[in-house]
Amino acid sequence: MKITRDLYQGSLALLTDFYQLTMAYAYWKSGKAEQEAVFNLFFRKNPFQSGFTIAAGLDYVIDYCRNFKFDENDLSYLGAMEQADGTPTFDPAFIQYLRELTFSCDIDAVEEGSVIFPNTPMIRVKGPLLQCQLLETPMLNIINFQTLVATKAARITLEAKGDPVLEFGLRRAQGIDGALAASRASYIGGCSSTSNVMAGKLFGIPVSGTHAHSWIMAFESEMAAFEAYAAAFPDNCIFLVDTYDTIKGVKNAIKVGNALKANGKKLLGVRIDSGDLAYYSNMARELLDEAGFTDTKVVASNDLDEHILSSLKMQEASIDIWGIGTKLVTAYDQPALGAVYKMAALKDENGNWVPKVKVSQQSIKINIPGYHNVKRFYKNDKAISDMIYLEDGKELSKELTIIDPYDPTKRKKINPDSIESKDLLVPIFKNGQKVYSRPKLEEIRNRTLTNLGRFDKAHKRLINPHIYPVGLEESLYHLRTDLVLKAKNYS
Amino acid sequence: MKITRDLYQGSLALLTDFYQLTMAYAYWKSGKAEQEAVFNLFFRKNPFQSGFTIAAGLDYVIDYCRNFKFDENDLSYLGAMEQADGTPTFDPAFIQYLRELTFSCDIDAVEEGSVIFPNTPMIRVKGPLLQCQLLETPMLNIINFQTLVATKAARITLEAKGDPVLEFGLRRAQGIDGALAASRASYIGGCSSTSNVMAGKLFGIPVSGTHAHSWIMAFESEMAAFEAYAAAFPDNCIFLVDTYDTIKGVKNAIKVGNALKANGKKLLGVRIDSGDLAYYSNMARELLDEAGFTDTKVVASNDLDEHILSSLKMQEASIDIWGIGTKLVTAYDQPALGAVYKMAALKDENGNWVPKVKVSQQSIKINIPGYHNVKRFYKNDKAISDMIYLEDGKELSKELTIIDPYDPTKRKKINPDSIESKDLLVPIFKNGQKVYSRPKLEEIRNRTLTNLGRFDKAHKRLINPHIYPVGLEESLYHLRTDLVLKAKNYS
Repeated sequence: MKITRDLYQGSLALLTDFYQLTMAYAYWKSGKAEQEAVFNLFFRKNPFQSGFTIAAGLDYVIDYCRNFKFDENDLSYLGAMEQADGTPTFDPAFIQYLRELTFSCDIDAVEEGSVIFPNTPMIRVKGPLLQCQLLETPMLNIINFQTLVATKAARITLEAKGDPVLEFGLRRAQGIDGALAASRASYIGGCSSTSNVMAGKLFGIPVSGTHAHSWIMAFESEMAAFEAYAAAFPDNCIFLVDTYDTIKGVKNAIKVGNALKANGKKLLGVRIDSGDLAYYSNMARELLDEAGFTDTKVVASNDLDEHILSSLKMQEASIDIWGIGTKLVTAYDQPALGAVYKMAALKDENGNWVPKVKVSQQSIKINIPGYHNVKRFYKNDKAISDMIYLEDGKELSKELTIIDPYDPTKRKKINPDSIESKDLLVPIFKNGQKVYSRPKLEEIRNRTLTNLGRFDKAHKRLINPHIYPVGLEESLYHLRTDLVLKAKNYS
Repeated sequence: MKITRDLYQGSLALLTDFYQLTMAYAYWKSGKAEQEAVFNLFFRKNPFQSGFTIAAGLDYVIDYCRNFKFDENDLSYLGAMEQADGTPTFDPAFIQYLRELTFSCDIDAVEEGSVIFPNTPMIRVKGPLLQCQLLETPMLNIINFQTLVATKAARITLEAKGDPVLEFGLRRAQGIDGALAASRASYIGGCSSTSNVMAGKLFGIPVSGTHAHSWIMAFESEMAAFEAYAAAFPDNCIFLVDTYDTIKGVKNAIKVGNALKANGKKLLGVRIDSGDLAYYSNMARELLDEAGFTDTKVVASNDLDEHILSSLKMQEASIDIWGIGTKLVTAYDQPALGAVYKMAALKDENGNWVPKVKVSQQSIKINIPGYHNVKRFYKNDKAISDMIYLEDGKELSKELTIIDPYDPTKRKKINPDSIESKDLLVPIFKNGQKVYSRPKLEEIRNRTLTNLGRFDKAHKRLINPHIYPVGLEESLYHLRTDLVLKAKNYS
C-alpha cells in the first residue's frame, strides 16, 4: 500500500457508507433510482456551546461532486463482492449502471465563511434519489469537520482580540487530511498562519515557525544554539526559551538580540512553551523591556484553547502571539459536529413534491420538511433573525411570522419589504454543472471576519451566548406540525 | 484544487512543520545536518484513563519513509519562499541538498497491535540530524491518531465480550484520511467490519451495512420499504426499525421476516438507532422470540462508547451487535494522544554517543536519555513488567533492578535468565533500507487480540485499571538522574 498514490489517486466514489450502495442497488431494483428527491444537510446544535457556527468545507464538496465517478478499480471491487452464499452482492447490470452514472444534481449551499445556526440547511441537494444518497456520507465527512474547526478558530481569534493566532496542530491532528483540512478551516476561521508546509503549498496559507527544543539540545549550550540559528536566519529570530530554564533562556535571547541589533537586525520574539504562561510571559516582557527590546514579541503555546486564552488575557499576561495546536485542530472539547443529511421531499409519479418528515422519540431529531431556503434579516446592519421558508414559487407575505419550532410561543413578526434581507443558500450546481465561482481562501477568510462583524457581540460571547433567533415561516411551521402529527397517527 | 489529485498525488515531504525546515536549513548552515542523532517517539499517558495502549500506524510510517523524497513541486515552493525583506528564505544550494536527499535512517519500532505503555519508545530513529528532524511531524501525525483509535477500539471490543462491533464513523470522522485511518485502526483494535467502502477496498477490511431512515421515507409505508429491500437483498435483511415507531417497526420486520422464511430466507436482524436502547432491545427480543425469530440479531447504535456499552451489558439489554461511529473514530473523550518525539542522544566529533535530556518545570516532560530499548518480562505466560534499558552492547546483569522513574522507591528485581522476555523494538529500516516484512492487517488484528490475552484483566479494566509496572534499568535510571541534576545546575 502506498499512502500517497493508492490512497487518493483514484476516485473517491467509494468514500461512502456501504449502506448507501446497498440502498442504491435496492432503489435501482425497485425502479426508484431516478426518482427526484431533496435532501438537506444541517446540524442540530452549535458546537462548543458557541452562539454561532462558521460554515466551511464547501470547496471540497464542489471538488468531490465535480470528480464524482466510479472508476474501473471501484467497479471491480464492487463486482467481486459476494453474499454469504457465494452469489454476487450486486447484479452486473447495476455495476454497468454505476459505470455510466454522471453527477447531475442541483446543489445550493451556504457559502464558506458564513455565520450559520442550527437546523438551517447548509447544503440542499436536489436530484435522483440514488445520487442524493451516495453523496450523503462524503458531504457529511467534509462539512462536519471543516465547519467544526472553522468555528473553533473563530472562537479563539475572537478572544485573541486582534493578536495573531498561529495554527500548528499537524502532529496531533487526526490523520493526514485531518491536518490539512484543519489548517484550511483554521485559516477560514481567522488564524494568521499554519505550521503545516503542505497546507501552505496546497492552499496558499502563510506558513510560520522557527525552531524546537531539539535545536537547543543539538548544541553544547543554549547560547550556542541561539547564535547558530541567528547566523542562519538573522531575519527570523523567535527563540524558544524554555528548554532548560525560561528566565535564563530569555536572558540568552537578549544577549543574541544585542548582537542582532549591532548588525542592524531585530530579535523578533521569544516563545514560551511550558510552565505558567502568565507568570513567565510577564517576566519575559519585563526583561525584554529593560534591555530595550520593547518591539520583541512574546509568543506562547502549550495546550491553549479559547478559554485559557481568555483567562490569560484577563490575567494581563504579556502575550502578543498565540500558538495553538491540538485543541484547535481536533476541536478537542467536541471533536465532531454531528451534522446530518435528511430527506425533505420526494417527487411523486405525478410530478408533485411530497414533503417528508422523519419522526423520532427525540424531538430534536425531527427534521424540517419541504423544499426550503433560509432568509436572514438585518436591522441597522446587524443580523436580527433567520427564517426558514418554503421556496415554492409563491410570494412571501408582507406580514411574516417566524415561529420557533421548539417553542411555538416564541414568535417574531417582520415586514420583509421594510428591512434588508438575503437568502443564505446560493446556487452551486445546476443539473450537475457548476454555476458558482469558487472564491479564494483569502476571500473566504475575509467573509468570516466581515460576517461576524454583522452580529451583536452577545451572540459571540464565550460562555452563555445570547441565542440568535431562528424560526420557521408560519406556513412551514404548520406544514411540519401537521406532518409530524400524521406520522404519529394523531390526525 | 482537486482533492483527489493535487492533494495527495505528489510527495508528502512537506507534510511537516515549517520549523523542521528552518531547523534543517540552519543545521545545514552550521555543518550539523549529517551529525548522527537518536530520537524516540513515545507518549506520556495512556489515553482514556486506560490501563494500556495499542500501537498502530507503523505501516503508514514505513510507507512514508520509503516514499520520502522532495519533488520538484515541493522544491519550487520552498525556493520561492521569501523573508520580510524580499530575499529568499532558503539558499539555492540548500534546495539542491534537499533535491538529492535520500532517506538513510535506521528505524526500530514496536510492531502494530502490540500492547504498550507510557514513556517507552514506540519508534526509535537513528540517523542524520536533519532527516531525524524532518520525520518528526509526519510520524507523530500518523502514530498519534492510529494508536489512539486502535486503543479506543480495543477498549470497546473488550467490553463487548465477543459481540461483533461494527465501525461506521465515516460521516463524523475528521477528514478523509481521518476516516480511512480510523477504519484501519479500529480493525486493528478488534472491530469486525467498517461501513467505509473505500477502507474496505484499500485495506481489505470487511464492509457492512444495510439501509438508512431515508430508505423508509422513500416509500409509502415502512412495510413497503422493508418488502422492497427484501426483494433486492433477501440474504442481507437487517431492518432499521425506528423511523416512525420502534415497536411497530419490529412488528413490520417480523411480518417481512415471515415472508422471507416462507422463501427459505432469514431475517438476519433489526437495528435500533434511537431511544432507550436497553428498553427497546428487550422489547424487540421478546417480540422476535415470540414470533419464532430466536436467531434474528438485535443491532444497536446511537452515540455508543465503551462506557455506555458496558452499562447496557449490565442492564442486560438484548443487544447482539454494536454499531459504533463518532465516539470511536474521533476518540471523542480524548481526541489526541499527545505522543512526542525527543532527542535522546547525539554523536560527538569523536564518534561517541552523548545522551541528551530535555529538562522542564513539568517533571513528566523530562525525557529518557540514551540509545535504549524495552524488554518485557513474562511469568506463567502473563506480562509482568517492562524495562527500559540502554542498548549499549553491554550484557545485562543477572540481577536486574527496575526503578520507577517517577517514584524511585518503587523497584522490582528480576533475574533475566530465569524468566521469559522479549525486546519490543524490532528493526524496520537499516540505512534507509526496509528490513521488516509488513504483516497483513488481519495478522495485526490477531496480534492485538493475542497480546491483550497475555495481560492480567486488572490492567484491562474500564475504570481505575491496575497500573502495569514500567521502569528504568538501574544504570539508565542513574544516568537520567545525573543528567537532569546537571542540567538544573545541581551538580
